[in-house]
Amino acid sequence: MNSFGKICIVGGGTWGTALAKIVLMTQKNINWYIRRDEQIEGFYKLGHNPNYLTNVKFNLAQITFYSNIEKAIKDSTTLIIAVPSPYVKQYFRRVWNSAFKGKIVFSALKGIVPGDNMVMSEYLADNFKIPQENIGVISGPCHAEEVALERLSFLTFASKDTEKAKTLAAGLTSRILKTKFSNDVVGIELAAVLKNIYAIISGVCQGLQYGDNFQAVLMSNCAKEMERFLDGIVPMERNICEQHYLGDMLVTAYSQFSRNRTLGTMLGKGYSVKTAQLEMEMIAEGYYGAKCIAEMNERFKIDIPISRTVYEILYERLRPQAAVDKLIELF
Amino acid sequence: MNSFGKICIVGGGTWGTALAKIVLMTQKNINWYIRRDEQIEGFYKLGHNPNYLTNVKFNLAQITFYSNIEKAIKDSTTLIIAVPSPYVKQYFRRVWNSAFKGKIVFSALKGIVPGDNMVMSEYLADNFKIPQENIGVISGPCHAEEVALERLSFLTFASKDTEKAKTLAAGLTSRILKTKFSNDVVGIELAAVLKNIYAIISGVCQGLQYGDNFQAVLMSNCAKEMERFLDGIVPMERNICEQHYLGDMLVTAYSQFSRNRTLGTMLGKGYSVKTAQLEMEMIAEGYYGAKCIAEMNERFKIDIPISRTVYEILYERLRPQAAVDKLIELF
Repeated sequence: MNSFGKICIVGGGTWGTALAKIVLMTQKNINWYIRRDEQIEGFYKLGHNPNYLTNVKFNLAQITFYSNIEKAIKDSTTLIIAVPSPYVKQYFRRVWNSAFKGKIVFSALKGIVPGDNMVMSEYLADNFKIPQENIGVISGPCHAEEVALERLSFLTFASKDTEKAKTLAAGLTSRILKTKFSNDVVGIELAAVLKNIYAIISGVCQGLQYGDNFQAVLMSNCAKEMERFLDGIVPMERNICEQHYLGDMLVTAYSQFSRNRTLGTMLGKGYSVKTAQLEMEMIAEGYYGAKCIAEMNERFKIDIPISRTVYEILYERLRPQAAVDKLIELF
Repeated sequence: MNSFGKICIVGGGTWGTALAKIVLMTQKNINWYIRRDEQIEGFYKLGHNPNYLTNVKFNLAQITFYSNIEKAIKDSTTLIIAVPSPYVKQYFRRVWNSAFKGKIVFSALKGIVPGDNMVMSEYLADNFKIPQENIGVISGPCHAEEVALERLSFLTFASKDTEKAKTLAAGLTSRILKTKFSNDVVGIELAAVLKNIYAIISGVCQGLQYGDNFQAVLMSNCAKEMERFLDGIVPMERNICEQHYLGDMLVTAYSQFSRNRTLGTMLGKGYSVKTAQLEMEMIAEGYYGAKCIAEMNERFKIDIPISRTVYEILYERLRPQAAVDKLIELF
């Protein structure tokens, strides 16, 4: 058996389902923790996730489902966590630190843990005393919907422990997945939060009928802001054009599949934040991300007017047109 | 009268027409050189360009048309050149150096002058002995079709003479146009050539049914290649995420209006280069750009596998799928 051992996917949403498919391209068996028993029953009945990515058929003989998180962790060596960031605490609230002993934990979350305003790698280290060398992150550019269609995607695996990240990356490389390695764990996690925020403003501008020319200028400015923010929080040599920064931002901001962009488009078209959220069945993580980044930046005071503006649209009733007018002055 | 005086648009194509509209947002009158008398007659008959951007109505009382290039230059202070790069020599072959004396010449060309493999600013300086301080470039992100729709666009004005570029930029800023200044004249011109090449490969991948995830990774790699190339040819402090580099590339590569992308899509779908070119009514400048860059790079030998691959598809019959397979190995 390879060093990452038996993999457990934690989370039964869209991204968890895509990751399960990715892992099963190279692994014979996986464990899969899903919170709700009804969802697991649906899997057995239908042969696919009853709620998300329903077009992806699974061979259930390859999957051991768990609705007990402690047991799922106990039976696995490597955990890949793919739950929405606002629910992280709920998922893990009954898990003891000792459960994670010797486990490798990769977070595929796109967001900050609300309240604590920590990225997941910090939260795992802080809350469960997992040593840094056993923590990693997995990041896009990779829309779950395209994984379902078996279109070639790229994921970056980051960890302080180069060897662990590279081994897992190599182990999951397949016909539909190419992988890269990075050691910028926190930077990649923050970039994943920012890109959701930028996808919202991209949608807002689309909703307000701005065109491709403007979108491109917006993306340029978002990339520059992302670079400033990451360099401010985690100073290191990095090329912001790498796929896990710029690429991840582009796929989210330009993609029709992006929930964050859809939220923004609705706001740009005049929906209130509340109405837009009610109309959407899935959580747009940028909604929470904007708040976390704004709170986090109270300490750092980095110049991030785009994120700030999204925060003001979402939480301070700034009108979308007024928000964009303000940004245009800065571009 | 402001320091840039009477402006003359040189070229009656799509981009020339968009620039005429932009200039007329703030200037009462313009001169406009159009090579073919029939096209000028069409203008008088229809009140719009008979061939391109036909939805843009002009007030003809504001325009003096010329089909004589020397006379057009003589009657103007600032020239904005917007002819397809492959035709530049033809347009200017009968113009004496002395005609440009005291004239300010801004190139809005997206391409290298074929044969000479020079960017336009070099060609103007070299061929017509125009001093550097009278030469400038205008660059996107700005699709002509969106200017026609009066959607907010951004242009960057670059010149060694900061004052001249800034004055012209300020003079043309309007409800539909925001402007920026840069001093990276040659870098911006080269970026404009590269983006057309990258739009072709973006189209190729679309034609081959690669999805958004892959496009984003491709764009990340294109941005990195652009940075390497520009830094190799014109070393200076530059942020590749600026709108005239990354933004211009994104608008071209992601836009449905891009002729270069359309050419690529047809190639990806299996059309031969010849058939694709016959089917398209307008020139895809990346076709010539790929050759110019390849020839130029024989001297510099910078690592630009994406541009190289596009060259091989266009001129050496490399199959699109084989080309993309090769690139994927490098990403």
